[in-house]
Amino acid sequence: MQSGAKSVLFVGDLSYADRYEYNDVGVRWDTWGRFVEQSAAYQPWIWSAGNHEIEYFPNMGEVVPFKSFLYRYPTPYQVSRSSNPLWYAIRRASSHIIVLSSYSPFVKYTPQWHWLKQELKNVNREKTPWLIVLMHVPIYNSNEAHFMEGESMRSVFERWFIKHRVDVIFAGHVHAYERSYRISNIHYNVSGGDAYPVPDKTAPIYITVGDGGNQEGLASRFRDPQPDYSAFREASYGHSTLEIKNRTHAIYHWNRNDDGIKVTTDSFTLHNQYWGSARRRRKLNKNHLHSVISERPSTARF
Amino acid sequence: MQSGAKSVLFVGDLSYADRYEYNDVGVRWDTWGRFVEQSAAYQPWIWSAGNHEIEYFPNMGEVVPFKSFLYRYPTPYQVSRSSNPLWYAIRRASSHIIVLSSYSPFVKYTPQWHWLKQELKNVNREKTPWLIVLMHVPIYNSNEAHFMEGESMRSVFERWFIKHRVDVIFAGHVHAYERSYRISNIHYNVSGGDAYPVPDKTAPIYITVGDGGNQEGLASRFRDPQPDYSAFREASYGHSTLEIKNRTHAIYHWNRNDDGIKVTTDSFTLHNQYWGSARRRRKLNKNHLHSVISERPSTARF
Repeated sequence: MQSGAKSVLFVGDLSYADRYEYNDVGVRWDTWGRFVEQSAAYQPWIWSAGNHEIEYFPNMGEVVPFKSFLYRYPTPYQVSRSSNPLWYAIRRASSHIIVLSSYSPFVKYTPQWHWLKQELKNVNREKTPWLIVLMHVPIYNSNEAHFMEGESMRSVFERWFIKHRVDVIFAGHVHAYERSYRISNIHYNVSGGDAYPVPDKTAPIYITVGDGGNQEGLASRFRDPQPDYSAFREASYGHSTLEIKNRTHAIYHWNRNDDGIKVTTDSFTLHNQYWGSARRRRKLNKNHLHSVISERPSTARF
Repeated sequence: MQSGAKSVLFVGDLSYADRYEYNDVGVRWDTWGRFVEQSAAYQPWIWSAGNHEIEYFPNMGEVVPFKSFLYRYPTPYQVSRSSNPLWYAIRRASSHIIVLSSYSPFVKYTPQWHWLKQELKNVNREKTPWLIVLMHVPIYNSNEAHFMEGESMRSVFERWFIKHRVDVIFAGHVHAYERSYRISNIHYNVSGGDAYPVPDKTAPIYITVGDGGNQEGLASRFRDPQPDYSAFREASYGHSTLEIKNRTHAIYHWNRNDDGIKVTTDSFTLHNQYWGSARRRRKLNKNHLHSVISERPSTARF
């Protein structure tokens, strides 16, 4: 449980209490809480909700979704002017982290849609050069498990992720690891346009890392052949680490821990999508010059 | 306001109170209620919710969606074991009518998804030969207004509509009229398959009839060229009528009333998707024979 990290980004599915009769009357939520406390006591865990948190049990009269999760895992949603604890944003070190809710309304005109539209404008890449998004259901996933479940959210938000130069999107849900190339499918529509995702340098990298461990086993059946958008995929338990070095570079690793030891299996250098462009670097230099100039006495302006 | 109909199916966007400052403190909801009472007093109106019912106003501290609508327009949702008044089903004459909520969660694992999955199994085409679905956001729409907004729900539910032989799907949202051919896009996925909707005799007909009148004017800009899936489209005010004749045939009309008089502009005979097949008709005859035979005294069985 010693992560060595400054923060843990958690992509949903906590206690799996929903798999027990009568929801195990909350006992699994208690034991799971004590279990993760060994880690959660030492650095913030950024929570996002998965399908196992919905706990919709009409047969026992329990029809309010996310009840246990919302009582047990409060989030600082009001600070980012969200109206719901299931979607929110926080700033941590040099990153702006946006947490989305796969199982709340997100189509155009819904509260989450309005909120995200505004929140993406609120991101200040001068203060937080890195923009990271968490969600439960992956948008790009070539595993047979949960294949195409992210399509609904893709059709609504993908365009914004590209426009606002999101660096990386982490998802869970699928019990296997997968990383995409920078691709987009924003030109697809039911009447024409590109048929399939195409390479797009302005797109985020999509990482599915739902292989942290669970009760249901690994999702071992990947679709064959591996689609063009899929850069790396493996059905092993593991976790990802992201070391942010400066405003332009971060080091990413996915570490297998199938055998009880951490083995780095996929890694790359993540280039910041905002500060990586030559135009932005020039602008940065110019701003720097400008700030030096404006330090002269104000009388000099006349 | 004299419809001459036995029921009115309403596809969302009622009072447009949300377009007024402070939501017009409910006054528009009152006046609109009195206005439609002239019709609603004489036959059931089947309500479904549109985006103008969301009324999400974080600036005035109002963040609970659909508050006015839910208090003013109760629906008989519990009878169909729905957990939420925004989605439900009713039987009316020989039709089973399912009302979906475009702005509530509907992806896999959500309450609406679980409910619809079960409700489609509950449909008894012997008792209610006709299966009709209402939603606000159209799944097939080639108007520039709200183009592709139905894609999220299409990717989740289209397969079920086909499997369960839905006859016709009515939507609103777009302030123009459009009717689709029987087509489907269920073989599309982000990794391969058909690129665009293809003719599919098992698919429902999609009718967008959001042209009942509104404050925002007509949506006159259709995409050019007209996509293959679009059978008829016109930006005029109007309404649809469906006369169910028997278990196999119904007469459909779309009536322009731009000029204050009802002018039938699009019409066709709707063949029932369940009872239209030769196999089903044979089964019907066989069942009929079977019921005649079993009317013999039970001793005859030995």
